[in-house]
Amino acid sequence: MPRYAFLGPEGTFTESALKQLTVDSDELIAYANVTATLNAVRAGETEFALVPIENSVEGVVARTLDELAIGDPLVIVAETTIRVSFALLTRSGFNRNEITQIATHPHAESQCRSYIAKHFPHAQIIPMSSTAAAAEAVARGEYPAAIAAANLAGKKDLEVIEDGIGDIKDAETRFVLVSKPGQIPARTGYDRTSLVAFIGADHAGALLEVLTEFSVRGVNLTFIQSRPTGAGLGDYHFIIDAEGHIHDERVGEALMGLHRICADVRFLGSYPRADKIAPTTTRSGHDDVFKEAESWLDAIRSGKKI
Amino acid sequence: MPRYAFLGPEGTFTESALKQLTVDSDELIAYANVTATLNAVRAGETEFALVPIENSVEGVVARTLDELAIGDPLVIVAETTIRVSFALLTRSGFNRNEITQIATHPHAESQCRSYIAKHFPHAQIIPMSSTAAAAEAVARGEYPAAIAAANLAGKKDLEVIEDGIGDIKDAETRFVLVSKPGQIPARTGYDRTSLVAFIGADHAGALLEVLTEFSVRGVNLTFIQSRPTGAGLGDYHFIIDAEGHIHDERVGEALMGLHRICADVRFLGSYPRADKIAPTTTRSGHDDVFKEAESWLDAIRSGKKI
Amino acid sequence: MPRYAFLGPEGTFTESALKQLTVDSDELIAYANVTATLNAVRAGETEFALVPIENSVEGVVARTLDELAIGDPLVIVAETTIRVSFALLTRSGFNRNEITQIATHPHAESQCRSYIAKHFPHAQIIPMSSTAAAAEAVARGEYPAAIAAANLAGKKDLEVIEDGIGDIKDAETRFVLVSKPGQIPARTGYDRTSLVAFIGADHAGALLEVLTEFSVRGVNLTFIQSRPTGAGLGDYHFIIDAEGHIHDERVGEALMGLHRICADVRFLGSYPRADKIAPTTTRSGHDDVFKEAESWLDAIRSGKKI
Amino acid sequence: MPRYAFLGPEGTFTESALKQLTVDSDELIAYANVTATLNAVRAGETEFALVPIENSVEGVVARTLDELAIGDPLVIVAETTIRVSFALLTRSGFNRNEITQIATHPHAESQCRSYIAKHFPHAQIIPMSSTAAAAEAVARGEYPAAIAAANLAGKKDLEVIEDGIGDIKDAETRFVLVSKPGQIPARTGYDRTSLVAFIGADHAGALLEVLTEFSVRGVNLTFIQSRPTGAGLGDYHFIIDAEGHIHDERVGEALMGLHRICADVRFLGSYPRADKIAPTTTRSGHDDVFKEAESWLDAIRSGKKI
Repeated sequence: MPRYAFLGPEGTFTESALKQLTVDSDELIAYANVTATLNAVRAGETEFALVPIENSVEGVVARTLDELAIGDPLVIVAETTIRVSFALLTRSGFNRNEITQIATHPHAESQCRSYIAKHFPHAQIIPMSSTAAAAEAVARGEYPAAIAAANLAGKKDLEVIEDGIGDIKDAETRFVLVSKPGQIPARTGYDRTSLVAFIGADHAGALLEVLTEFSVRGVNLTFIQSRPTGAGLGDYHFIIDAEGHIHDERVGEALMGLHRICADVRFLGSYPRADKIAPTTTRSGHDDVFKEAESWLDAIRSGKKI
Repeated sequence: MPRYAFLGPEGTFTESALKQLTVDSDELIAYANVTATLNAVRAGETEFALVPIENSVEGVVARTLDELAIGDPLVIVAETTIRVSFALLTRSGFNRNEITQIATHPHAESQCRSYIAKHFPHAQIIPMSSTAAAAEAVARGEYPAAIAAANLAGKKDLEVIEDGIGDIKDAETRFVLVSKPGQIPARTGYDRTSLVAFIGADHAGALLEVLTEFSVRGVNLTFIQSRPTGAGLGDYHFIIDAEGHIHDERVGEALMGLHRICADVRFLGSYPRADKIAPTTTRSGHDDVFKEAESWLDAIRSGKKI
Repeated sequence: MPRYAFLGPEGTFTESALKQLTVDSDELIAYANVTATLNAVRAGETEFALVPIENSVEGVVARTLDELAIGDPLVIVAETTIRVSFALLTRSGFNRNEITQIATHPHAESQCRSYIAKHFPHAQIIPMSSTAAAAEAVARGEYPAAIAAANLAGKKDLEVIEDGIGDIKDAETRFVLVSKPGQIPARTGYDRTSLVAFIGADHAGALLEVLTEFSVRGVNLTFIQSRPTGAGLGDYHFIIDAEGHIHDERVGEALMGLHRICADVRFLGSYPRADKIAPTTTRSGHDDVFKEAESWLDAIRSGKKI
Repeated sequence: MPRYAFLGPEGTFTESALKQLTVDSDELIAYANVTATLNAVRAGETEFALVPIENSVEGVVARTLDELAIGDPLVIVAETTIRVSFALLTRSGFNRNEITQIATHPHAESQCRSYIAKHFPHAQIIPMSSTAAAAEAVARGEYPAAIAAANLAGKKDLEVIEDGIGDIKDAETRFVLVSKPGQIPARTGYDRTSLVAFIGADHAGALLEVLTEFSVRGVNLTFIQSRPTGAGLGDYHFIIDAEGHIHDERVGEALMGLHRICADVRFLGSYPRADKIAPTTTRSGHDDVFKEAESWLDAIRSGKKI
């Protein structure tokens, strides 16, 4: 019975997302922040950990990217996405006019910016470590209102003032399930490969080269994000998601190409896409075409054909 | 006497940065957050606003990028950088062992992660809207300790437990000074041009095309950052800093190229670089070479030469 | 009444091609070789000259390319193509078995290689300066047979042993009509622009750059040919045909780009394509999109918009 | 004792070039033209054949390229170059004023164009199959003068009117030694690899892709030449010389890349360069870097590292 760490507390969107990947008998354990959640796997407390990595409105979750890119090695073995809907929650019987403070996570605040500006322009925003923590703080009476998932209302004995208050209705969050390195999920035909390319200081030229290593082998990218290496302004590494599996010939060759031109490359996993969309490479990117080219080269090199 | 909005409260790194750009008689006004600071200019309360845009350790300041990219139009007219050094502050006479909570801004927390893990592994981190706000909260007795600039100790009557606690010693933050659009600072020979390229959903191919528009005209980039457009996972726009000034021929032609292939391009300003580093383009990127090519084409088109 | 020089003697494929471009009252004058034909225009003896430039089987006509690229300036003002069909001709009453020699132009020989190898494996090939000259020599009794156009048989009192003896049935030759520089034919919407790019010794890199100058502006190429500059093995210039007219914005900008990165660029003319095929550029290559981008840049530079 | 076919007759530049590669005891056999010379190897009459492939003034030898690209398979196993110097030869006692005809090979004529125009503007040029054949014809009394190598004068009992009459003083010709496929010369560290890429009709895009397959692996090119496939105007294949040996990792991978994207690729041999210049690839193109990347990928794929 595997154990799963997740970014808690209970009731966060992450828990809902995790339930899409687990069965009832699995053990789900909440941790206080992204680092603690991932450390649970590193320390052997759990086999897996689920953390958010990207939100369609707010962008990447910097801590998750940094932990995967430069923390102790972990690999992604699965992903899942959920629709994110925000509600304004108060303690029961609370008056709308009394809302002078709103507790929430900064990402949730960004996603509800217009709603807040329109309805509560003078409210002070209290930054919390998660939306569930914000709901709890409201339940404890520390703040008058929280922005969090509507389904927390029942659990925390809170009231939904208004649901669906996000500026964009179909905001979505992507979560990744990580484990210790060691086993790569089998190919499904609709896989994604994540990696980090460390390319030193020269942005434009180096990034052009990195992108070319993929494009020349017919590998499409679905995500590129730069993050500072910490070595000075303008010194970045790139987190990249590519279509396909590390066992696909074109992906393997592209990664070898990256490995040759980059200061360093870290493999972050090959795993099935949540949306089950298959890669859209041209014929020249197919495995059999790569293998045929290898046989051809072998024959040429041995002098058997020209 | 111009007025300057800055990301307050007083005592933040932003205020120190702003003083590098102003004289004593200027009026400096603190605002509560990035949006409020920028809105001061939009509303005409101040002529200028200074906000952080990028940190060498934590990366970009998402709210600043988003406000500039998709908020009501503002342009960058100057930039400045400061070294960022973090200290652990407590109320006078406080015992190190009593530090069970540390208040600070999430970016400062990331930059001091190792120090915290080593010396205060069990302390609860209290996220605050700024490091100065954290110091104030400690001064008010709400929390035992704060991570903030050491120079705040004197102002708030706090004590420095330890200075220079950042994981990386030479962390640096870049700030941009913005104003309403209307006038572009004159060319200095060491300028930077910022812009936003909106390129729809297909990452790899479109980004390759965008980078090629610059490289083919000999324009180097110093910064590329993707941000979600909010239209769905994987739908991004790119904030780009290029070497040179909008009045440089090669920069102008590259921007026209972008304008032709992108869904939209927003100009964010041309302004002198804080480090006064001049562009390193090849001879074919120089203004006189561009002008000579124009004269040549005119002569060809009129049939005067071949 | 304009005069036209053409690569003679009378009866060559060039004369047939020229008649596609002229009217009966025009004066057509045969010259002995490509250089003499082009010199007729340079010397003012004729207003125009028609010479072959490319054959679908044998390739480019080196002398024509070299004369246009490095001879005294001339520009192409029109092009035309003809189907080329070869016949084996003898004097009347001549026996097939007596054909021990075949006179023809080397290009014609290449195009009939299989036929010769099969039917006359032991015949000596006599290289002549044109197929018409070969037919004449046969008519004079110098050689037993010639490979030339079948329609020469009537004119020279020769007999067609076999027609359509070319290895490839639909061989085609392209001819260009040149004049002194001075006036560029008006845009038709299905134009071609010819030019020479001199790029020094480094092949691979420089050619990649040259091709990128076109592709980044959405200009397709229909012809690329390297020719030695004469300065040493491996030192080449490139003759290039691009879709579009020098007055098309994308073509003009691409040529300026070439002018900036190349040692030299020579314009060889913009003229209607014989096949009347219009360019297939993307929307971003259209004139109105270029002009819109220029207005946009002007507005940005003057501070009127961002 | 190996036999060598060469483009005769005796006394041609090709024979001089061949002697740079052979020893006195080798058997050297002259053939009448490029095709016959190469067919000697195909038919087993000789083990090797030497033919000219490229001249620094006149460009490529089309027949050689076509035979290698689309004739029955042969591979290049060595190359050599010689300086080419042309002389005007006549029979002894002949008067300069009597030279009304000059026999020579068309390539030699091109290289002496200025000399002829200045000194013999009215002379008729008689195209011959080789310069040695021209000298022989003059010796037989068929024509008054020939342009050929000065050293033929002694052999044929001719007189040198003037030596060094080429327009460019240091004209150079490159010759290739070919054999039947089967064995590839060992790596020397200064090798060249020749090949043919068949890429269908779309020039600009396909050529960009072909060049990128090389540049992305750090392989430099020393020669690119398009030749018509015979399938219609604008339908070309490319003969390419790359730095390095087929057994070099970067060359092998580039060729596999070509094989995947091209309609067809024909290998024409890996052999030592006559000028013994070693490739100038970056570190990422070195064999050990390629092998290290392979080991790295194997470790990643087996889950042993990230």
